[in-house]
Amino acid sequence: MARKGADLKADVKKLKEKVQKLRKKVKKAAKDTVGSGKTAATVSPLAPKNGFPTLPRIAGVEFATVAAGVRYAGRTDVMLARLAPGTALAGAFTRSSTRAACVLDCQSKLKIAAESEDGAAIIVNSGNANAFTGKAGQEAVDAVTSGVAAALGLPPSRVLSSSTGVIGEPLPHKRITASLPELVAGLDDGAIELAARAIMTTDTFAKGAAAELAGEGGTIRIAGIAKGSGMIAPDMATMLVYIFTDAAIPSKALQKMVSRQVDDTFNAITVDSDTSTSDALIVAATGMSDAAPITDLRGKVAREFEAALRRVMMDLAHQVVRDGEGATKFVEVRVTGAADAADAHRIAMAIANSPLVKTAIAGEDANWGRIVAAIGKSGARADRDLISIRFGDLLVAEKGWRVPDYSEQAASDYMKRQDLVIGVDLGLGKGAKSVWTCDLTHRYIDINADYRS
Amino acid sequence: MARKGADLKADVKKLKEKVQKLRKKVKKAAKDTVGSGKTAATVSPLAPKNGFPTLPRIAGVEFATVAAGVRYAGRTDVMLARLAPGTALAGAFTRSSTRAACVLDCQSKLKIAAESEDGAAIIVNSGNANAFTGKAGQEAVDAVTSGVAAALGLPPSRVLSSSTGVIGEPLPHKRITASLPELVAGLDDGAIELAARAIMTTDTFAKGAAAELAGEGGTIRIAGIAKGSGMIAPDMATMLVYIFTDAAIPSKALQKMVSRQVDDTFNAITVDSDTSTSDALIVAATGMSDAAPITDLRGKVAREFEAALRRVMMDLAHQVVRDGEGATKFVEVRVTGAADAADAHRIAMAIANSPLVKTAIAGEDANWGRIVAAIGKSGARADRDLISIRFGDLLVAEKGWRVPDYSEQAASDYMKRQDLVIGVDLGLGKGAKSVWTCDLTHRYIDINADYRS
Repeated sequence: MARKGADLKADVKKLKEKVQKLRKKVKKAAKDTVGSGKTAATVSPLAPKNGFPTLPRIAGVEFATVAAGVRYAGRTDVMLARLAPGTALAGAFTRSSTRAACVLDCQSKLKIAAESEDGAAIIVNSGNANAFTGKAGQEAVDAVTSGVAAALGLPPSRVLSSSTGVIGEPLPHKRITASLPELVAGLDDGAIELAARAIMTTDTFAKGAAAELAGEGGTIRIAGIAKGSGMIAPDMATMLVYIFTDAAIPSKALQKMVSRQVDDTFNAITVDSDTSTSDALIVAATGMSDAAPITDLRGKVAREFEAALRRVMMDLAHQVVRDGEGATKFVEVRVTGAADAADAHRIAMAIANSPLVKTAIAGEDANWGRIVAAIGKSGARADRDLISIRFGDLLVAEKGWRVPDYSEQAASDYMKRQDLVIGVDLGLGKGAKSVWTCDLTHRYIDINADYRS
Repeated sequence: MARKGADLKADVKKLKEKVQKLRKKVKKAAKDTVGSGKTAATVSPLAPKNGFPTLPRIAGVEFATVAAGVRYAGRTDVMLARLAPGTALAGAFTRSSTRAACVLDCQSKLKIAAESEDGAAIIVNSGNANAFTGKAGQEAVDAVTSGVAAALGLPPSRVLSSSTGVIGEPLPHKRITASLPELVAGLDDGAIELAARAIMTTDTFAKGAAAELAGEGGTIRIAGIAKGSGMIAPDMATMLVYIFTDAAIPSKALQKMVSRQVDDTFNAITVDSDTSTSDALIVAATGMSDAAPITDLRGKVAREFEAALRRVMMDLAHQVVRDGEGATKFVEVRVTGAADAADAHRIAMAIANSPLVKTAIAGEDANWGRIVAAIGKSGARADRDLISIRFGDLLVAEKGWRVPDYSEQAASDYMKRQDLVIGVDLGLGKGAKSVWTCDLTHRYIDINADYRS
């Protein structure tokens, strides 16, 4: 008994040391990533107040990160996630016609190897997007993914990769493959926050979100990380998102849920109307939860799982907007009463992307006239004299004009808030859609006028 | 004979005094308009070096301006143009679904009264756009145009009006009608530059252009003015354009020419992708040239007239971009090799409107990767590995990658120029299109974050 007690104490001590070590690493990574660029100096004022959330460990998922020197010096820039045998995979990707080699590679691999008894892996580098790099782009993807496959004993079709950063520069892929031994040695199921930091580019904070639900006979856990803060617009944003769950669910069912939820989440956010060539959302389900497999796809657990997945996706999508380059305001544009859902989407995005609306918000100017102009240019059906506009609960305009008791003071006071809701009702039908955006500030210009320098 | 000489001398003296007086007025107006807003402080660095051009007098057109106090203090803000009996009218307007009352009014009047034996008039105010002002909007238009009709003895259907400035505020139309006696008394065929100044809002310079051609038996003259510097995007820009000619040409033929030329000129420019609710281009042909009427619409004179009209339209369109809010670079985006013309237009506009491309240009960063990303998001057909990109004559990328002898130095040197040409060849077909844009700078934010304050 005494011996067992001593063993346990030793284990606890070891674990504590490990935690200490990880905390130090996280602290260092946080310092390195946030201070690294000339431009990504301070954390966004819209960042979650409590910092990176505590994410549950997902059984069957391990992470490792390394400073491979892809582009940045003195910070981690490659992350590897190893996934247990039998992990089901699903994804959603940019629809850009000039999408990067790694995106095309992920798409083709998911078609043939989303469901498999084999393990799987995801490898991601920041600093270089490996986009518009011609034939060399695919060669780099092949080198990296087959390197990971060899190092972990996986078929190459089960290794997905992403790259984010500068476009049009050749990816120094040998720096990544040279780091594989260190990555493999460092795999750790508690390192998800480090993974979130390694994939950052102009992000000012690491992004994570989690959810749990009761499955049959056990808990199902979901944890996700994301990066993105500019070139954010549908379809998908310049955004990399990795969501892990221990749920046991067939890849086809998982893919259906992801496809269903992506429109209201990642395809409903915009920072600057620019779409990346590299956007990727990958969802991996290891099936290692104690809960029974999700087989009845119309059952309670399936519905609750999809709802929890949606919450994680929405949370991460909002965090991307909250880290929008130069953002000082988080804005929901809530369109109702449009002729149909497509029109609602078109109008919401026209408002959310309008530089004039976004600069007015930056200036805390209750300039609803610019919202009307954005509705007008959207191409969607609109009757000027049926439109009403709200700032939060404050009705500012209805039936084609400002309300009789309009108070500039009340509207201006509202605009001083950090989180804003712009409500637009078209008065035509039942089409509704919410999208999220941020304001357009001097800092956006600072960040983007010399991103490469 | 002596008496006749004395009369002539007196006439010359009077004319000289008049010229002197006009020059003073122009100088004062220039000072007032450019210094008037908090924000419109300095003239755009892209402004034509020689200032406002000398425009020919157009027989049958007189102008007057007044400081009516619509919104601005101490500067002219209303201009009236009186057009001779029989003047043919044509126009092109914003396609915004929330367009202003004056635009709807112009469109309906041009349907019934473009051709008439009566005289005509155009009245324009700056400072208030009278847009999204409900029923009061149309009432204000009626009050202003019928006031002008009464003052000049014209049918109201021959009086066109425009308003530009803040959206959503009621137009204080009585200030305009109260100024009509002063306006009518001041009508002068040499006051076109004053007219160009009175219609300015955030413009930093007055815009004018002219052309002449030999008609049958005499010269045909064209002179135009424009305003616009933000909320500039197709279809039309936040732009008011008035072009006058002494040509004798039926309104239908004139309208055809205007419609044909507007796509390559005013609908091919963008500053910020935002479309105004008030855009208007009005062309008036007085028929008072010595040249014979243009009757053979396929004849040499008709073709030369249309070419001259196009030159004036293009010149004014470019000047609007050169006065783009905060602009420091004038950029032509020249797309060739697209699958068709519509695709070429879509790609050119996606590049010209991309905030990331525009901030890179502001930073003199040869970031052709962002151009690829913009092509990708455009929705037009593109094959990543067939695209080539040029900065001026400098080939920077071809067949999906940067050229082997790519020189960052040479590309960066090119970006330091004030006037840039970005060439994109898709390698797919014969679709071609040029559009013009400017960079996105801190000053754009300054101007638009507190336009109303």
